[in-house]
Amino acid sequence: MRIARFTTGEEPRFAIVDGDPGAEELVVLTGDPMYTPGTVTGERIKLTDDVRLLAPVIPRSKVVCLGKNYEAHAKEIPHRGPAPDVPILFLKPNTAVIGPDDPIVLPSYSEDVQLEAELAVIISRVCKDVSPENAEQYIYGYTCANDVTARDLQRLEDQWFRAKAFDTSLPLGPWIETELAHDDVEISSRINGNATQNGNTRDMLLDVMHAVSMVSEVTTLLPGDVILTGTPSGVTALHHGDVVEVEIEDLGVLRNPVIRRG
Amino acid sequence: MRIARFTTGEEPRFAIVDGDPGAEELVVLTGDPMYTPGTVTGERIKLTDDVRLLAPVIPRSKVVCLGKNYEAHAKEIPHRGPAPDVPILFLKPNTAVIGPDDPIVLPSYSEDVQLEAELAVIISRVCKDVSPENAEQYIYGYTCANDVTARDLQRLEDQWFRAKAFDTSLPLGPWIETELAHDDVEISSRINGNATQNGNTRDMLLDVMHAVSMVSEVTTLLPGDVILTGTPSGVTALHHGDVVEVEIEDLGVLRNPVIRRG
Repeated sequence: MRIARFTTGEEPRFAIVDGDPGAEELVVLTGDPMYTPGTVTGERIKLTDDVRLLAPVIPRSKVVCLGKNYEAHAKEIPHRGPAPDVPILFLKPNTAVIGPDDPIVLPSYSEDVQLEAELAVIISRVCKDVSPENAEQYIYGYTCANDVTARDLQRLEDQWFRAKAFDTSLPLGPWIETELAHDDVEISSRINGNATQNGNTRDMLLDVMHAVSMVSEVTTLLPGDVILTGTPSGVTALHHGDVVEVEIEDLGVLRNPVIRRG
Repeated sequence: MRIARFTTGEEPRFAIVDGDPGAEELVVLTGDPMYTPGTVTGERIKLTDDVRLLAPVIPRSKVVCLGKNYEAHAKEIPHRGPAPDVPILFLKPNTAVIGPDDPIVLPSYSEDVQLEAELAVIISRVCKDVSPENAEQYIYGYTCANDVTARDLQRLEDQWFRAKAFDTSLPLGPWIETELAHDDVEISSRINGNATQNGNTRDMLLDVMHAVSMVSEVTTLLPGDVILTGTPSGVTALHHGDVVEVEIEDLGVLRNPVIRRG
């Protein structure tokens, strides 16, 4: 099932996405099905230009990200000393989140901002110290993410806050897919239609269930928390005027324009 | 003015703290004065054992922390390469927050968890790209913080998530002081009554207003967001059974027991 958050100009609402690609319809729900059973209102809206899809989730607590979770990507970015045994964990704030078609605004302090296509996992229920075997029951669904990164700052600075926490650095969407073959889907990205990344989630060093388990050893996960599972190789710089796409097989395409202000 | 969040067994409420140390009374408010004008209900409650003070703020978005913002502390902890020109920035999640008297639970994966007494700044209004000169109008107040840190993990791992983001790693309290001589107050810590840290906020490399300004260049600050301004030298390990105190002059004492489970 696909669950979208959208607006037609009023307050955000939630809907089940029905229909084939290019002819989707929104089956409007009475509330956020993450917190309340999603009763169908009866209203159906065609997914046209009059409907604006929003980030399908705004985390109330945190976004925990895995760094260097695909071996080929771990080799292409700088690190101090030998590559770590386990993926690196870091946080992004909820103020970084934007939705489909929202502009990625390149921060003024960076001259090398890059895309990172990632599979995002959305948590459904409070959990702590969950085993990989039990992790699936705490997962609400999946969406596409772009872990936009100021690579020059990441290289220069000890911690990645300025590199990865800036406003608009986390496009999420286009919707949440509650059923996904998370351990074997293709993940790719494009800039202006040209292929940049081409990977498959089966190449993740830590799979989704082990990632949820590892994060839950450190911190209590809350409903709406998001875990980003790392990016495959092929990260590429973004420039003013670009359109960047993240695509995950059987899920959809997350598309954002890129701008630099001033 | 001192603003506390408290419970007498029911839902959390807010109050103005009135009276001298040891004889404080809570002047109960109708709501959270950060979001709604704090009208006095008329109820006054003595601050006794029947009243439990809670963390005075639960950030809805983020806690941004400065690392190495006191020169003497920057020298006592490990870093890779030369000390940075500007303080390091990193995030803690809102799930790390606990209140006065709540136990700090040492994480099972660390054998060297240390205290870090810090002045916490609470943001009152949405701000982005604010200058140091204008920063003060976006500050709601100040409280004591303990940036509890797994020093062994901080040493081993590239990013500080496991070192600094674990549950209970951010005691805040005992209340918010809206007026404070933030650039010249003593900040100290004790374990079981024995002095560990003794500093003064005038020794911060980046003062409060410059810190707010620097963070706001990266990310939009929201009401209730917290900025931790770094810790003076003297960081010391915590052990099961300890009682740790953070004291800031003209503000108060934040006291927490320390436990290790299992």
